[in-house]
Amino acid sequence: MTSSLGPNRHLIGRDADTLARELATPALMVDLDLFEANVATMAALAREAGRKVRPHAKAHKSAIVGKRQLDAGAVGLCCATVREAEVLADAGLPGLLVTTPVVTPSMAARLVHAGEKAEGLMVLADTMAGVDLFATLARPGRPIGVLVGVDMGMSRDGVATPAEAVALAARIAAYPQLRYDGVQAYYGHLQHVKAVPDRHAKIAEQWERLDKVLAALKAAGYAPGIISGGGTGTHQLDMAHGPFTEIQPGSYIFLDKQYGEVEIVPGGSPFQTSLTVAARVVSDVHTDRVIIDAGSKAVSTDYGPALVAKGAPEGSTYQFMGDEHGAIRVPEGTARPLLGGIVELIAPHCDPTANLHDQFHVMQGGRLVDIWPIEARGH
Amino acid sequence: MTSSLGPNRHLIGRDADTLARELATPALMVDLDLFEANVATMAALAREAGRKVRPHAKAHKSAIVGKRQLDAGAVGLCCATVREAEVLADAGLPGLLVTTPVVTPSMAARLVHAGEKAEGLMVLADTMAGVDLFATLARPGRPIGVLVGVDMGMSRDGVATPAEAVALAARIAAYPQLRYDGVQAYYGHLQHVKAVPDRHAKIAEQWERLDKVLAALKAAGYAPGIISGGGTGTHQLDMAHGPFTEIQPGSYIFLDKQYGEVEIVPGGSPFQTSLTVAARVVSDVHTDRVIIDAGSKAVSTDYGPALVAKGAPEGSTYQFMGDEHGAIRVPEGTARPLLGGIVELIAPHCDPTANLHDQFHVMQGGRLVDIWPIEARGH
Repeated sequence: MTSSLGPNRHLIGRDADTLARELATPALMVDLDLFEANVATMAALAREAGRKVRPHAKAHKSAIVGKRQLDAGAVGLCCATVREAEVLADAGLPGLLVTTPVVTPSMAARLVHAGEKAEGLMVLADTMAGVDLFATLARPGRPIGVLVGVDMGMSRDGVATPAEAVALAARIAAYPQLRYDGVQAYYGHLQHVKAVPDRHAKIAEQWERLDKVLAALKAAGYAPGIISGGGTGTHQLDMAHGPFTEIQPGSYIFLDKQYGEVEIVPGGSPFQTSLTVAARVVSDVHTDRVIIDAGSKAVSTDYGPALVAKGAPEGSTYQFMGDEHGAIRVPEGTARPLLGGIVELIAPHCDPTANLHDQFHVMQGGRLVDIWPIEARGH
Repeated sequence: MTSSLGPNRHLIGRDADTLARELATPALMVDLDLFEANVATMAALAREAGRKVRPHAKAHKSAIVGKRQLDAGAVGLCCATVREAEVLADAGLPGLLVTTPVVTPSMAARLVHAGEKAEGLMVLADTMAGVDLFATLARPGRPIGVLVGVDMGMSRDGVATPAEAVALAARIAAYPQLRYDGVQAYYGHLQHVKAVPDRHAKIAEQWERLDKVLAALKAAGYAPGIISGGGTGTHQLDMAHGPFTEIQPGSYIFLDKQYGEVEIVPGGSPFQTSLTVAARVVSDVHTDRVIIDAGSKAVSTDYGPALVAKGAPEGSTYQFMGDEHGAIRVPEGTARPLLGGIVELIAPHCDPTANLHDQFHVMQGGRLVDIWPIEARGH
């Protein structure tokens, strides 16, 4: 019952008619062709621009997805949590970068252990204590790569001044059991600025700020080998004009409602929405709506209601109706979805939506061709 | 690594000092004394009022918690999903009521199978198709209990008129392999009406509506044995004046920010907050805040920011800073929590917060005394 492939594992290979009858819902669906096109597009854009891509695994938390990104040319994968790094390291995936400072000895020890299973693990530090902790834990002959976290106006983690960055780099470099690998400078808060010129202006301010840090590091003898940052929303500007050696996009593989409202490149997006939540009509007793079995435990609640993608007339709307339910209303004069029928939703925000589920149901040519476990969800 | 007890299992029995150093965060914490007092209080109130309690497992999704509620006198447990029913049935817990209509043959078959492992499983129907489906699946000699779903103004599931309720009851009763057990009439949308008199007025309107349904059922020979409804917010009024034979409260075991703003009984609440999210300060480089490792993947986003409960000066505030982070700001003139220190948050909404985690970390007398798996989360 709780196999890592979940309650729909017996449906692998079955066609749309069978799924319409039997798919256990709510279920997270991935359109494989669109997903693969998104992965290939980002890889090609980076190649053309002479940049590297280290996609962010926080979007999918899945070793299979991560492996496909690596196979397409990614230099590694970013991880937001210790668990993500453990799961991906267990799968032998190289080039993991933990993008969040870790300052707890027991959690840092888990990371060091994970680093013994996968080549090239790197961690982030923005405090002296964080550097010292990993120096204490690193094993002889197996140095740990450390990036200096630099704030890019998000005021979350990362040092704010060139002097602090130089001091941290010096601290890292002073430990033989650590390896100073460069800097991370992420502006997550600017990924969703809707218009390209506005986004360009805002990130250019941060590039200037980062340039000062980079100049100071270089002057002090700590020119960074890696400058990691950027994301799905800023990738084109980052690759064309930014200071980064590598980009950290996450959501580009799936997209969502939030990115659907962003002009990712002038006039549109090079990526297509590949992720939906399939839910089923479980009640039709109220004539102005039907009720589906997807609520706030199947769809993220951090960016308004989900969009209706399939299974209901164009112009239909979704409304949260508690933890396990939602209402679908159809435009006047159109037919409501039938009781038992499947409606597919576009998530308001893909990362926290994937985090609610345990499997991706992978569709191609109208068939369920695979199920991918989301084994790094949770903590 | 992915044991059902999670990364903190080696800390069971350890004291607060050890936890302060070693607890892997974010972690969902339960104060056992407060939790047990909440369970006992609801059980005692129901006994005194001559009502039964069938607590809602959607709040905790955990067989251990459900068993404690049954041990305290609950007649069974409500389940919002097929998976909840499967997990609780696997643990042998009796009296399960699935409060959501299930209309997919494969999912209904899973419920019937679950019902073979646990005594007294009941399902909900608000359509003829739903009744017919379970009639098709029920096995000889093992009738399935069915409740008629009645709408109580939420316009989600449940029939709206006495005539529809009678027709459904007749349909259920006509099948020898089904057992007509009564009605469910739930008003989830009225649980959080803040002032007692307002709440009383609103639910009294729904009682009147339900009275008409009950009278029609009785007149037609379908007087319900079970009338199930109510919740944490309305429990006192439901028990004192309502039409229910049993109440379905969920959140009373934990409470949360949302219920903290509700006058559950005149002047306050008979329950106390027993649930927190423990997170750790992972960055302190910005002088006006510290950053903790709990964001929208550790704390529900459906009711504004979390509250700060412990580990930071009174008056401190929390702000979401993305999927894995939050900012804690302290009042002017007070000291910020130290790097590596633990801050505990009260969840905006307990049900979807528990659904983000895989374990409850159970605290008593300053020690971690147990870890309870949240094994029914997901779908």
